[in-house]
Amino acid sequence: MAKELKELTPRSQDYSQWYLDLVLKADLAENSAVRGCMVIKPYGYAIWEKMQRQLDDMFKETGHMNAYFPLFIPKSFLSKEADHVEGFAKECAVVTHYRLKNDPDGKGVIVDPDAKLEEELIVRPTSETIIWNTYRNWIQSYRDLPILVNQWANVVRWEMRTRLFLRTAEFLWQEGHTAHATKEEAVEEAEKMLNVYAQFAEEYMAVPVIKGVKSASERFAGAVDTYTIEAMMQDGKALQSGTSHFLGQNFAKAFDVKFADKEGKMDYVWATSWGVSTRLIGALIMAHSDDNGLVLPPKLAPFQVVIVPIYKGEEQLALINQKVDGIVKSLKALGISVKYDNADNKKPGWKFSEYELKGVPVRLAMGARDMENNTVEIARRDTLTKETVSCDGLDMYIKNLLDDIQANIYKKAFDFRAKQTITVETYEEFKEKIEEGVFILAHWDGTAETEEKVKAETKATIRCIPLEGDKTPGKCMVTGKPSAQRVIFARAY
Amino acid sequence: MAKELKELTPRSQDYSQWYLDLVLKADLAENSAVRGCMVIKPYGYAIWEKMQRQLDDMFKETGHMNAYFPLFIPKSFLSKEADHVEGFAKECAVVTHYRLKNDPDGKGVIVDPDAKLEEELIVRPTSETIIWNTYRNWIQSYRDLPILVNQWANVVRWEMRTRLFLRTAEFLWQEGHTAHATKEEAVEEAEKMLNVYAQFAEEYMAVPVIKGVKSASERFAGAVDTYTIEAMMQDGKALQSGTSHFLGQNFAKAFDVKFADKEGKMDYVWATSWGVSTRLIGALIMAHSDDNGLVLPPKLAPFQVVIVPIYKGEEQLALINQKVDGIVKSLKALGISVKYDNADNKKPGWKFSEYELKGVPVRLAMGARDMENNTVEIARRDTLTKETVSCDGLDMYIKNLLDDIQANIYKKAFDFRAKQTITVETYEEFKEKIEEGVFILAHWDGTAETEEKVKAETKATIRCIPLEGDKTPGKCMVTGKPSAQRVIFARAY
Repeated sequence: MAKELKELTPRSQDYSQWYLDLVLKADLAENSAVRGCMVIKPYGYAIWEKMQRQLDDMFKETGHMNAYFPLFIPKSFLSKEADHVEGFAKECAVVTHYRLKNDPDGKGVIVDPDAKLEEELIVRPTSETIIWNTYRNWIQSYRDLPILVNQWANVVRWEMRTRLFLRTAEFLWQEGHTAHATKEEAVEEAEKMLNVYAQFAEEYMAVPVIKGVKSASERFAGAVDTYTIEAMMQDGKALQSGTSHFLGQNFAKAFDVKFADKEGKMDYVWATSWGVSTRLIGALIMAHSDDNGLVLPPKLAPFQVVIVPIYKGEEQLALINQKVDGIVKSLKALGISVKYDNADNKKPGWKFSEYELKGVPVRLAMGARDMENNTVEIARRDTLTKETVSCDGLDMYIKNLLDDIQANIYKKAFDFRAKQTITVETYEEFKEKIEEGVFILAHWDGTAETEEKVKAETKATIRCIPLEGDKTPGKCMVTGKPSAQRVIFARAY
Repeated sequence: MAKELKELTPRSQDYSQWYLDLVLKADLAENSAVRGCMVIKPYGYAIWEKMQRQLDDMFKETGHMNAYFPLFIPKSFLSKEADHVEGFAKECAVVTHYRLKNDPDGKGVIVDPDAKLEEELIVRPTSETIIWNTYRNWIQSYRDLPILVNQWANVVRWEMRTRLFLRTAEFLWQEGHTAHATKEEAVEEAEKMLNVYAQFAEEYMAVPVIKGVKSASERFAGAVDTYTIEAMMQDGKALQSGTSHFLGQNFAKAFDVKFADKEGKMDYVWATSWGVSTRLIGALIMAHSDDNGLVLPPKLAPFQVVIVPIYKGEEQLALINQKVDGIVKSLKALGISVKYDNADNKKPGWKFSEYELKGVPVRLAMGARDMENNTVEIARRDTLTKETVSCDGLDMYIKNLLDDIQANIYKKAFDFRAKQTITVETYEEFKEKIEEGVFILAHWDGTAETEEKVKAETKATIRCIPLEGDKTPGKCMVTGKPSAQRVIFARAY
């Protein structure tokens, strides 16, 4: 594919443009011919596959199985849960017909008016309704519970303003939907999956997150409580990275799903749902990357090490090939993914900048002098530092280096967030500081009115009521009314 | 989930009903509230995941990468390739609106007439058009070729008569879409992927297949040649299990995708596409299963071994648990998937019939006498035979047994097909024999007229012109005109 100039708009100049440049130039994704829908290119999709594989393993370890439910939802299903329809009706793709026919005017095809559906179908924006309609037939007694099911799927929300990965009309995600006999068990499940998401974000994405509960106005449509993990991007804005919902008995009531308990008493079933999406790729990019390109944590990089030969003539290349072959084998034996790029139609300098742009964590360069000295040049993508090391014990050296890089990327993001998180006491100070790109811990009186006022005046929203940390009560920075604990305010994606 | 009686309609009585009973009772899939769309239940989906993982590995070994393209296709794109639109226009789900609103009458929601799309969107029935529209921007010169991309996705074809897994309005599949500089390379790719499919069917599904080329009337809409693998079900009918298409320059011309060759000359790009779907699960079921339930080849079984304890009292169970724990560990160490079912709310007999229904290849039962003798009872699902063996060396014994079962299931299907494949010389004989559920090798004059006549009179179609086997020319059984080689006729799913 033809390469444009690789220079990115610097972050300091225009953070949004930097992000867009990077997504396009690193071949992660692009806009398609369909408004708001993206094409996820092979390199971007490879990151998603790494995420999927790891999350899927974690879901299975916690007892979940995958299943698949229909893409379409009958329109009437959406109406059954009042808050749910309110939340999603305004951004639905609606299927009304099931056939095209030749245009009598001879200009291509038109929708066949005789093929109108009796009831319109909605392309799923989320699957609670179709799934709870299905669960009704799966659940009779407590013996059928819990149901611990996850689905990997595409969903559609007709967003008006879209941005690659962060907000697209179609996106890929997973949605867990569980059914339980008791409220306590459902709450425990919702919290458990929040912890799985937090663990994934921190250990694999190297992105520190704050776990918390959403305020009522930011809750998922149909939930009793929404748990969230919130991450800080390099511009200080928050990105909601995963949510887990305790749905109470709302969907069970809407779809009449009851079970007989051990005593034979009938009750509605308790529910959770939880999801993360391709939005995580946006979070990954914005949390770590720099003006030279992507910076990928080794655990999610499509390949962790790239090796570039520097040679004159076929003979030298043949020797290097042979040497590198052994290195590749020893790295693979340790479970490290490696690409050896000895393509002869591109120069080493071009390759260096290409793999820097693509965020490959470790680059090895092997030239004539290295061959003589039994050394190799190692470049770290995260620090952009280089060193020359011996080929003896190289495999373990690189294995440890990858661990170091993973830890360092996390630490950098953690330290940045720590620096950019502040506590304020007054609304005046809040309005001043929020301009600096920070998370603000402040007291809030718990009302939607105050929340709305702050949002209207500062564009900052309550990201969450943190589950951990300081729980000291205080007084609302805006109204002076009592506050149970500080909450996190920030501007957000 | 509450269990119905597990008895299946016998195959000899009603093969179609047996299939449906089995899909439902083994918890593989069920119909949903949306016409023609299925719910794939966790056990059925686990089989699909095994298939996906293996196929995905094989695609990557042959140099392909995954990507993701939009669910929606602008209506005008479909019209750009004449045969393609002809093939798919009559079974399309069409999105015409992007918003719902509250019904002014207060009865739920209605489609908002103000939110009509300027151009209707088709839910992809297959993605050649949107992908080739994208490739136009990816390809300038021979250096950008080949493009070797695969997509795992859901697609929708508004079929009027549906049957779980075999023909559903929505199904899951993979679709490879490749772009090449030369015709030869594209043909080679189409054949390579056909071979990948054949290898998967035979080595993993344990289903023997015939590789061949489709006649013109059975070709994919827009293809120059369609390659196919055809499998025989236990009723003697054929099931098309995977297809690979050489698309020539048809889509490149429709979407104006040209490249500059090494001499700078511009030419249209050559294309292939290839796919298999959740239909394979239907093939797997119908090829091997029996009146007692599923028979799964070990390589695709969600779990390969189930262990059931037979005990009186907690004390005995504790001893068996301890013993089984060691067995489970040693089996897992060999990469064998095991489930230990010591749930105390179901009797061993119930468990035996449940796992038989679900096709678990090997069942171990461990009772008090086995504990005394250091033995275990092993039951094979494929032959329904039992034997008692020593626990010493049990892990290797079972590993070999699983290989035996895989081979035996394949052999059984292979022998059945050999028995049910015949050669006929006359159309009279053809009409008589086709009633017996057979593949018939017969000469055909190569015309669509003859093919159509045979289909109308016997319901048999040309499954393929085989790539391997006897290539002797002859005379058409219907018209007596020259025939290049025998072709395979059969009734088909």
